[in-house]
Amino acid sequence: MRQRVEKYIDGLQEQIVSELENLDETAPKFRRDAWIRQQGGRGLSCVFACSPESGRTTSSLETVLEKAGVNVSVVHGMLPPSAIREMRSDHSSIPYDGKSSLPFFAAGISLVIHPRNPFAPTVHANYRYFEITESPVEGDEGPPKVVAWWFGGGSDLTPSYLNESEVKHFHRTLKEACDQHGSELYPAFKKWCDEYFYIVHRQETRGVGGLFFDDLCCEKHTRLSDDITRPRTPDEIFSFIQSVGNAFIPSYIPILKANAVRRYTEHHRRWQLLRRGRYVEFNLVYDRGTRFGLKTPSARIESILMSLPETARWEYMSDLGVSEESEEGLLVKVLKEPREWV
Amino acid sequence: MRQRVEKYIDGLQEQIVSELENLDETAPKFRRDAWIRQQGGRGLSCVFACSPESGRTTSSLETVLEKAGVNVSVVHGMLPPSAIREMRSDHSSIPYDGKSSLPFFAAGISLVIHPRNPFAPTVHANYRYFEITESPVEGDEGPPKVVAWWFGGGSDLTPSYLNESEVKHFHRTLKEACDQHGSELYPAFKKWCDEYFYIVHRQETRGVGGLFFDDLCCEKHTRLSDDITRPRTPDEIFSFIQSVGNAFIPSYIPILKANAVRRYTEHHRRWQLLRRGRYVEFNLVYDRGTRFGLKTPSARIESILMSLPETARWEYMSDLGVSEESEEGLLVKVLKEPREWV
Repeated sequence: MRQRVEKYIDGLQEQIVSELENLDETAPKFRRDAWIRQQGGRGLSCVFACSPESGRTTSSLETVLEKAGVNVSVVHGMLPPSAIREMRSDHSSIPYDGKSSLPFFAAGISLVIHPRNPFAPTVHANYRYFEITESPVEGDEGPPKVVAWWFGGGSDLTPSYLNESEVKHFHRTLKEACDQHGSELYPAFKKWCDEYFYIVHRQETRGVGGLFFDDLCCEKHTRLSDDITRPRTPDEIFSFIQSVGNAFIPSYIPILKANAVRRYTEHHRRWQLLRRGRYVEFNLVYDRGTRFGLKTPSARIESILMSLPETARWEYMSDLGVSEESEEGLLVKVLKEPREWV
Repeated sequence: MRQRVEKYIDGLQEQIVSELENLDETAPKFRRDAWIRQQGGRGLSCVFACSPESGRTTSSLETVLEKAGVNVSVVHGMLPPSAIREMRSDHSSIPYDGKSSLPFFAAGISLVIHPRNPFAPTVHANYRYFEITESPVEGDEGPPKVVAWWFGGGSDLTPSYLNESEVKHFHRTLKEACDQHGSELYPAFKKWCDEYFYIVHRQETRGVGGLFFDDLCCEKHTRLSDDITRPRTPDEIFSFIQSVGNAFIPSYIPILKANAVRRYTEHHRRWQLLRRGRYVEFNLVYDRGTRFGLKTPSARIESILMSLPETARWEYMSDLGVSEESEEGLLVKVLKEPREWV
């Protein structure tokens, strides 16, 4: 499975980056940073940014994207007892004696796209595979025995302005990808997404949701009924991952294309920057992946914080978004009361 | 003590706000929001911001300040057993039975000033008094018995560009205020400040430091020798607080004045916005007050996040600040290796 996942995410990364590059042929290409982790593993960060020209605050280029990152990382190492203990609550098959470390393998693709146009929503997606094996025994040939494995991931949309038909398209595309593998997946993961991307201190969601799931494996799952049709074997779950992974481009790129060249004013830009402030608040205060990364001493900080927008704005008691009749207020209403879109 | 602290911080707030308003007579005045806390207490948030004109991203006004808040809050209520247990490590006089709540009182002034000019540093200061009393006994007249009390606070400077003589002036002014109350205070609290305002994931301090202290009372203090001259009684410590509180204006305002009208380019502005990104990272990821506030259900979120700058910027692998010979690199060097300034 390791090799298959690795091959799949490498391919998906290349496909997404090409798609984004083809969309805007005069824009600079993505920067590709391959990296190697001393403790084991490798990765490729593909990042889009427009470096400001000398003596300027921001670039003068009117590109479709403002900042974007599509990362792949494949790392392995030893998991300390404290981390094992935490994981056991969802994966009872992991042996735990309170003092031993266990080998782990983690491979994932993670992306965040912040377009320049305030009508084009920000999008995030992440698909990952995690595996824990027995400690290798000296003299033993062959791969070590897998004691636990699971897949996780999801994809969610964060618009500054609400366009209902686009949100429906995004959700419908993801739902269709899910439905091939069982009808309970989309409703469960849609709900999980609304719960996960919640900014407690603002009492609103980060965006209009999508999918979020974790710990998907052959064991019982806390968010899925036990007697339904759903992917259970490694092959079945990997096939589900490929369906939702492959749904990324059709779910998002049409929305990006439709809005990339819309006319907008500084008023729209101001609201977009305020919403990006909320994006920063969620990622730095709540996002598990980001907070885990910030605490990891050997982590590649530039890759972790690549999810942050190029610019963000904070206003004390802003008047934007307050009136329920305004275009900004329409978005806020949906963030306060998540809706069903399909 | 409650009334004396309250009167002092109210006066200091008014003085600081007036000083800032007088500095820039054509700028809009601070907005003054008085608030009342349902569960007990009141406050006054004084906030400076330039609302963008209709159809603009930012205000066109070239004011000295870009965003600033000077807040006073005086709150009281009941402290749950979990909070009491945590506080007991530094205040052994608090009675603890694992199930009772105790009345608390907290009064403080807190300010953050983000000037517009990239050569004018951001500054933060906070002085506060905390008191825990016995639960009131029915029929008992008079104030309840104080079982624990302490003062905390500090002030620190966050420049985007290093001006050594200004940093020395800031530290010297605070040191002189401290030295009147004991020679060990400044070195201990300067060191504490460098340790507290440390952005672990960036391996750099937020700024060039100043003072940071907490739990100052008549009991033993973990960061101060027991046999030295230092303020110990409530009167002595309150007098120390007034000295450092009163040092705020002379420590900072001359620096602000000297830089408010300096010429700068978009290059300097870009670096300032990147540094403000780091300010956001520290406040949302590490700052105890902010994180405590975000977790408090009834907290006034607009007052807590008032400390965030109006705009901030993130660049992937930015080239600014990398070269040690650049003006930006000179600052980074000091943030990586905090210096003695006096």
